[in-house]
Amino acid sequence: MSPGILYAQNLFCLDYPCLDGGPMLITLTTDFGHRDPFVGIMKGVIAGINSDTQVIDLTHGIPPQDVMAAALTLRHSIAYFPRGSIHVVVVDPGVGGTRRPLALEDAAGRLYVGPDNGLLVPAAEGQGGIVRAHELANPDYALPSVSRTFHGRDLFAPAAAHLALGVRLEELGPPIDPEALARLDLPEPDIGANRIRAAVLYIDHFGNVQLNLRREHLEQAAIEPGRQIELELAGERYDAIAARTFADARPGDVILYEDSYRSVSIAINGGDAGAMLHALPGQEIRIHLDAL
Amino acid sequence: MSPGILYAQNLFCLDYPCLDGGPMLITLTTDFGHRDPFVGIMKGVIAGINSDTQVIDLTHGIPPQDVMAAALTLRHSIAYFPRGSIHVVVVDPGVGGTRRPLALEDAAGRLYVGPDNGLLVPAAEGQGGIVRAHELANPDYALPSVSRTFHGRDLFAPAAAHLALGVRLEELGPPIDPEALARLDLPEPDIGANRIRAAVLYIDHFGNVQLNLRREHLEQAAIEPGRQIELELAGERYDAIAARTFADARPGDVILYEDSYRSVSIAINGGDAGAMLHALPGQEIRIHLDAL
Amino acid sequence: MSPGILYAQNLFCLDYPCLDGGPMLITLTTDFGHRDPFVGIMKGVIAGINSDTQVIDLTHGIPPQDVMAAALTLRHSIAYFPRGSIHVVVVDPGVGGTRRPLALEDAAGRLYVGPDNGLLVPAAEGQGGIVRAHELANPDYALPSVSRTFHGRDLFAPAAAHLALGVRLEELGPPIDPEALARLDLPEPDIGANRIRAAVLYIDHFGNVQLNLRREHLEQAAIEPGRQIELELAGERYDAIAARTFADARPGDVILYEDSYRSVSIAINGGDAGAMLHALPGQEIRIHLDAL
Repeated sequence: MSPGILYAQNLFCLDYPCLDGGPMLITLTTDFGHRDPFVGIMKGVIAGINSDTQVIDLTHGIPPQDVMAAALTLRHSIAYFPRGSIHVVVVDPGVGGTRRPLALEDAAGRLYVGPDNGLLVPAAEGQGGIVRAHELANPDYALPSVSRTFHGRDLFAPAAAHLALGVRLEELGPPIDPEALARLDLPEPDIGANRIRAAVLYIDHFGNVQLNLRREHLEQAAIEPGRQIELELAGERYDAIAARTFADARPGDVILYEDSYRSVSIAINGGDAGAMLHALPGQEIRIHLDAL
Repeated sequence: MSPGILYAQNLFCLDYPCLDGGPMLITLTTDFGHRDPFVGIMKGVIAGINSDTQVIDLTHGIPPQDVMAAALTLRHSIAYFPRGSIHVVVVDPGVGGTRRPLALEDAAGRLYVGPDNGLLVPAAEGQGGIVRAHELANPDYALPSVSRTFHGRDLFAPAAAHLALGVRLEELGPPIDPEALARLDLPEPDIGANRIRAAVLYIDHFGNVQLNLRREHLEQAAIEPGRQIELELAGERYDAIAARTFADARPGDVILYEDSYRSVSIAINGGDAGAMLHALPGQEIRIHLDAL
Repeated sequence: MSPGILYAQNLFCLDYPCLDGGPMLITLTTDFGHRDPFVGIMKGVIAGINSDTQVIDLTHGIPPQDVMAAALTLRHSIAYFPRGSIHVVVVDPGVGGTRRPLALEDAAGRLYVGPDNGLLVPAAEGQGGIVRAHELANPDYALPSVSRTFHGRDLFAPAAAHLALGVRLEELGPPIDPEALARLDLPEPDIGANRIRAAVLYIDHFGNVQLNLRREHLEQAAIEPGRQIELELAGERYDAIAARTFADARPGDVILYEDSYRSVSIAINGGDAGAMLHALPGQEIRIHLDAL
């Protein structure tokens, strides 16, 4: 496909350098796992509508029906995808019920497709906010028969494939006021004089434990690299040290550091912090600043 | 690659709208898992022969050597892939022995590549039947050296890549009478006046338990949404209700429903039916219609 | 993109038939697993720089921080990827420390990108040797902000995407003498008159146990198909037979065979040799030739 045809097809591409004649980019994020053909089927549907896309799996390892984990994953990842990219997210415990299927656009020109259960909002709001949202209601942009249990295949994949063909958001269905979208309750930390009360958001494959803290919270509490602290989880206390990176600590040390998403995480140099601390998403964690 | 070149290359594309200048589509389905580089190597072989394909992983999570699970997965998925698409399936306990490697075409113009052990047949027969089948015997369309243990890499991936280049099925080797292909023994249900005797076919990532029943079997037994039934597995009995979708039942209810493949499945609203019922593929299940 | 443009962009493509107008090929091999969005983010970074690439996952199932497993995986796979392909490998326990990030080229015109911890060397040396290596030091070919913990995203993916655009290796940073690269200590077998002392290198998804032996070692010890041998692992002894393929042995037989990588492996016909022998990577194994 020539660049000219591509530019004509999609308004989002006009000023974006990545779409240099290559295919439109669609990402998929689900809780479908890797055993079943669900993800492959969604890709077949996309290819049947628009064979000239590049589909990237963001992850299909979201814990089943964990809308919060999916929302955080997308929020952390989205900045690394270009303007004009399209993001389909299917973690959808309410499928077949009354929750609306929707598509929305962020202020940087990225598009999102998924259920109205809060999972798309944190990512879009982290990218300048939601410019507009539309319900998926136009049957021209869905499969001819829509099942009650697999909207990823029947509604979301077709909508994304059509958006990649240049269909505009407003053609998909009636507008929804962004303020009226379902929202998740993201926990806020409490920064005290001698302790921080925070929450475990996510534990990754390496056992790194991500907290609902950012660099500015550490600065507010005067935690600098090298400072000794104490962590408290589930009644247990652990010595730890603030550090810039793993290499600043001795093997086995528990460190508190600014991770590659610019969030604050806990790691063990050469070990698995999640397993060692018995950390669980949603758990409260206290950081004691008067240690030693 | 211009649409003109593409159309000239592949006869299957002449009347198919998806091949609008985009690459040819190849799917891969295996029991290779995700730890080893086997799948990546097959993609390298394909790209080395034909760099202008789109390769979709249908799944690599088929249980090792479970030909039946692979056949069912492909049969459920195939309708979502366009005419002209090519499907490589490698679940191949007989590799290195006497089973033939083959390629076949269904009545909708899709191509299939894999071993002659039955796994391709149910999908093709569900799509109008097998139009023709050819043994993979032409060394021009295999790697120069064919191992005894990895035909996915040495025979099947090269055959698919050449088909995507426009090589015709009959160039791959001598024809095989479709009637002479190996076939799996798919269990048939028994619909009685007061009970259905069926079998568990497959349990997915969410714990949904798929049976060898379709909507017409439920209609034959006068099972309609809202009807109370009793399920019997491995000597245990469970109350259940026929429902249209999860949202029609209360949390924790066991439901019998028509799934998104139009097969009949058992699910638990908000739970894992496979784990709760201790269901296993191949197991007999009885549905008692005289419950309460 | 027309073939002319592609050829002009990348010197490696001039004489390679695979790059027939299709996109440049990049493979990814990591220990990131499939739960987190790390791999998807790397693909987003690549697509943002160069949307006309084909990215193949070689595997993301390398055990966390197991540099040796990654090096062996790449060495076994690399021959199946074409001249001009680009291979990014991220198993990087030293990230954020003093180990250098680098790119190198093998004698067959393939490019490799990753940390200087030994993991790229065995593959390149198996393909005719390392022609040249350069440190990744030019910030023009990295993300604007480079984290201390995720060089896959911030350094390696951008370098690969730029190489695929036609940037030359020497533009990435100063040369490194290939002799000065970090190297792994690959164990060598000891072939005696009555026994072979070898090591377990890798156990795959099917339980096949790969040894640090090749066909020439078997020939040196006069082990031919049909010969009875005895295996000794962790003090336990097992009867086994040398065979050409699974089909040459009875179900349940332990066989020693030349695998599809032309390495020597142990398998059980219809079973899981790794589990049955309690094999572990790095373990010593003895093959006794005076059995029976």
